[in-house]
Amino acid sequence: MTLLLRRAQWQIQAVVAFAEAGSLLFGMFDPLEKLKEYIGLQSVSADSAYRSEMLKTRDFVAGMFREMGLGVEIVDTKGHPIVVARRTGPASWPHVVIYGHYDVQPVDPIELWETEPFVATEKDGRLYGRGAADNKGPQMAHIAAVAELLEEYPELPLRLTFVIEGEEEIGSPNLLPLLEERQEELSEADFVLLSDTLSPSAEQIAVTVGLRGIVEMEFELVGPNSDLHSGLYGGAVYNPLQAMAEVCASLHTPDNRVNVPGFYDDVTEVEDWEREELKRLGSDEEVYKASLGVEALHPHAGYTPFEAIRYLPTLEFNGMWGGYQGEGSKTIVPAKAQAKITCRLVGQMDPAKIGKLVADTIRSRVPAGIRIDFRMGHSGVPYLVVPPDRPNTPQNQPPRLAQAFRATDRAINEVFGRPPLFLREGGSIPIIADVKRVLGLDSVMIGLFLPEDNLHAPNESMVVGVLKKGTEVSKRILKEISGIY
Amino acid sequence: MTLLLRRAQWQIQAVVAFAEAGSLLFGMFDPLEKLKEYIGLQSVSADSAYRSEMLKTRDFVAGMFREMGLGVEIVDTKGHPIVVARRTGPASWPHVVIYGHYDVQPVDPIELWETEPFVATEKDGRLYGRGAADNKGPQMAHIAAVAELLEEYPELPLRLTFVIEGEEEIGSPNLLPLLEERQEELSEADFVLLSDTLSPSAEQIAVTVGLRGIVEMEFELVGPNSDLHSGLYGGAVYNPLQAMAEVCASLHTPDNRVNVPGFYDDVTEVEDWEREELKRLGSDEEVYKASLGVEALHPHAGYTPFEAIRYLPTLEFNGMWGGYQGEGSKTIVPAKAQAKITCRLVGQMDPAKIGKLVADTIRSRVPAGIRIDFRMGHSGVPYLVVPPDRPNTPQNQPPRLAQAFRATDRAINEVFGRPPLFLREGGSIPIIADVKRVLGLDSVMIGLFLPEDNLHAPNESMVVGVLKKGTEVSKRILKEISGIY
Repeated sequence: MTLLLRRAQWQIQAVVAFAEAGSLLFGMFDPLEKLKEYIGLQSVSADSAYRSEMLKTRDFVAGMFREMGLGVEIVDTKGHPIVVARRTGPASWPHVVIYGHYDVQPVDPIELWETEPFVATEKDGRLYGRGAADNKGPQMAHIAAVAELLEEYPELPLRLTFVIEGEEEIGSPNLLPLLEERQEELSEADFVLLSDTLSPSAEQIAVTVGLRGIVEMEFELVGPNSDLHSGLYGGAVYNPLQAMAEVCASLHTPDNRVNVPGFYDDVTEVEDWEREELKRLGSDEEVYKASLGVEALHPHAGYTPFEAIRYLPTLEFNGMWGGYQGEGSKTIVPAKAQAKITCRLVGQMDPAKIGKLVADTIRSRVPAGIRIDFRMGHSGVPYLVVPPDRPNTPQNQPPRLAQAFRATDRAINEVFGRPPLFLREGGSIPIIADVKRVLGLDSVMIGLFLPEDNLHAPNESMVVGVLKKGTEVSKRILKEISGIY
Repeated sequence: MTLLLRRAQWQIQAVVAFAEAGSLLFGMFDPLEKLKEYIGLQSVSADSAYRSEMLKTRDFVAGMFREMGLGVEIVDTKGHPIVVARRTGPASWPHVVIYGHYDVQPVDPIELWETEPFVATEKDGRLYGRGAADNKGPQMAHIAAVAELLEEYPELPLRLTFVIEGEEEIGSPNLLPLLEERQEELSEADFVLLSDTLSPSAEQIAVTVGLRGIVEMEFELVGPNSDLHSGLYGGAVYNPLQAMAEVCASLHTPDNRVNVPGFYDDVTEVEDWEREELKRLGSDEEVYKASLGVEALHPHAGYTPFEAIRYLPTLEFNGMWGGYQGEGSKTIVPAKAQAKITCRLVGQMDPAKIGKLVADTIRSRVPAGIRIDFRMGHSGVPYLVVPPDRPNTPQNQPPRLAQAFRATDRAINEVFGRPPLFLREGGSIPIIADVKRVLGLDSVMIGLFLPEDNLHAPNESMVVGVLKKGTEVSKRILKEISGIY
C-alpha cells in the first residue's frame, strides 16, 4: 500500500470516528486507530518473553514517525532500544523535545481483566487495554498533534525531537546515558513536553511542576546463625525481629516527622501561591479517607495530607519480613529480619546525602548482638519548575519556556473549559530531574490520565475525550510556540 | 514364623550386637534392632500422604507390646490412634505410666540428609534416621527396660500403662481428651516416666523438673484498602509496617523486660538450690555466643542467659511480615502487616490471662488509622515438680514419686558415672502440665537426646551408648519402684 493510499484511508476513518464521537475533528492521522494498534503490541519491558513484541513495537513507533515525515533514528542500548525522531530546521526555529515511552507494565493478575489486555476495546467513552493510560494514550496526544499540525502547516517553523524509550517501567536505565551522549544536540532545545502524570479529573487538568526525588535502600539484621527454638533459646538472644521493630520504630516521631538527624535540612519553603493552587483542587479529607478505607490520616504535624504528599519528604517502609509466615505457628527465634525503605525527597535534598544519613542512623541504632547488612538502591533528585508570573519565578527563565507555560494555561482553559492547576506531585520521575541536570531543560508536564484509569493495574483505560482534547491542547501549544496564532 | 522362633532369632542378634558393641548386655528383646525397624516406618503425622505408614507404625508398636505380654488397646481418635498397653495387677502394686510418641517430624529438606531418613543407619556409635532421637530412640529405652525386666522377673510386682500417641509433633490434639476420659483409671497411678527432653551431653544427663508454658497469638494490622503508591500517598496515611514496628517495639524495655502491664505478676521465685544446680551445668557464655554466632547476648537484666531461658517468661516474635519481599524495589505503602508471637510462661502464669493482657496491650497501642485483627492460638500452662529433699519440696509429695526421683538420681549416677542435674527447661510440653492438671500426676523426665542429635532437622541421630545406658537406668528405676534391689 502506498503512503498516499494509506493517508486517504485514515482520512475516511477519521471522518467516521468524528461522526461517531460527535466531538473534535481529527485530521488524516487517526490517533484513536493508531492507539488501538499501539495497545495491541505487547510491549512488556520487564519480561524477556516479550522481547520480539518489544521490537515490533519499536518498529511501529518508528513507522508512525516516518509516515509523519520525520527522520527516525533507532538508538540501540544495553536494554531495549530508544526511538528518536527529528524534524530539523533553522536554529532560529523553536525546538521542543517530546518524551514518551512505548513499554508497558506486565498484565498480571490477568484473571482480573474484563477485556483482553492487549486488545484495545472501546466501551462507554473509554479505551481499555494495557498501556492505554501509561503511556501510549497520553503520548499519542502529542504525536497526533504533531501529525495534524504538519498536515495543516507543512512549513511549520518548529524543530521537534521525539524521544520514545522502551524502559520507563523498569527505571529508564539507558536513557540517562543517551542524554549525556547527546547533550550538545539536545541541550539547545527550549523545553520538554510530555504527558505521563496525573490529573484529578477529566474536567480539571493538572500541570505538574514538581516531583519528589527518591532514594531506595534495604537492609538485613542478622542475629543467631540459624533459626533457634524459641523455648530453648528465647530470652537469651536478641530476636532480630525485635531489633527490626525497635530500629524501624525509632525512625519517626509521634507527629510523623522522620526521626533522622539532618533529614529536613535541605527541605525548601513552599510558596503561598502553591498552597492557594492546591486549595483550588478542593480535596476533601472525608472523601479521601473513605476512598482509602481508613478512619484517620497521619500527615506530618502542621500539614494537610494533600500538602504532605507534595511538599514534604518521607521515609516509607515498602516491605519488612522475617521468621515464619505460614499457617499456624512455628516457635522460633528467627536468624534474621529484612526491610526495604524508600525516602521521597523534596527541595534541595540530595539522594546520596539522605541515603547516607538514614543508613548511618539505622546502623547506630542496631543493638549489640545483631549485625547489619545495608544496601543502597536507585535514586533520583527532586524536581521543581516555577511557571512564569509567580513571585518565585526565576529572573532568568527562558522566554520560550515561559511562553509554553502561558500557552498551556490558555489552551487547557479553552479546550477543557477550566484553567489547569499547577501542582507538585508526590511521585518521582527521576528522568525529569536528569533532563534538567544534564540538558538544563525544564519540562511541561500535562496530566492526561486520571485516578480511575487503573495504571499498573487490571482494566487500565483512558477516556477517549481526554485523548482528543489533549491532542487539541498540544496542537495549540505547539502552534503558539511556533508563532502561529 | 512362630513367636518362639522370632524370640530365638532376637537372642542371636542380641548376642551379636553385644559382641560388636562390647558394652551392656541386652536380653532377648534387642532394642537396637527393634529401633531400626521402628525408624524404618515413615510415621509423619503432619502429612496425610503418610496415613498408611502411620497405621503400620501403630501396628508395629502394638505388636511390640503384645510380644512383651502386655494387653494392648488401640484408641481411635479424630486424628491418629493412640496405643495404650497395660500390665495389670493388684492395687497394692506400684503403677507407672510411661509416655512416648510414635510420630515423627517431616524429613524436609531431604537433600541435606547424608543417609536415607527412613533407613536406620549405624555409624560411629550413632544411629541415624528420622525419629532416632525424637522420640523413637529415647522411648525405646523404657520399652526395652520393661521387656528385659519382665523376662528376668516374670512376677515383677509392678503395674504399667504405656501411652504411646501418634500426634505429638502436631500438638497432641487428641491426648487430653483421652486423659479426661480415662481420668479415673490413670489418676490412681503413681507417676509418669518419659524421655522426651534434652541432656547437655552423653556424660551429663539432665532430669527435667520444669517446663515453660506457652501461649501463641497472631495479628494483622490493616491500613488502606489496597497497597498504595508510596509517591502519590506516602506521607498521608499511616503505613501498617510503621505501626507494626512501633507496636512491637513497645513490647520490650531496653533491659529486655516484657513491657506489658501485669505480665510478671504470677512469676514465682527461683530457689537457691536450682541456681546451684544450674551452675553445676558449667555453661560458658563465650562458648554459647560462639555456637550461636552472636557477639552479645540479651537476657533480662539481673539474669544470666542460662537462667533467663529457664526461669523467666518471654514474648518472642516468631514471624513478622508485610509489603514487598522480592528482588529490587516496589514503591508501595502496603495495605497490611502481620506478626506471630509466642509467650513462654513460668510459675503460676496462666496462658489465657497472659494472652488477654498481651492482646489488650497491643490493641491499646494501635494508632488511629490502623485496624487490628487478633487471633489467639494454642496454649499450655507451665509445669514444675520439686524433687524430694529440697527446701521447697511439697510436704505432701507422694512417696513413690519421691522414691522414683531418688532412684533416678542413683541409677544415673551409677550407669552414667555422674549424678543427673535436676533442671528446668525453656521449652514447653503442654501435655505434661495437662497430666498434672487432669490426673494429678507428676512426671519424671530423663533426658536421652543431646544438643547435637539434630531433632526436627536433617541427619537426626541418637548415640547408641546413651540408648543402652538409658535402658539400664530405666530398668533400675522400675526395679527399685517394684521393691526389688
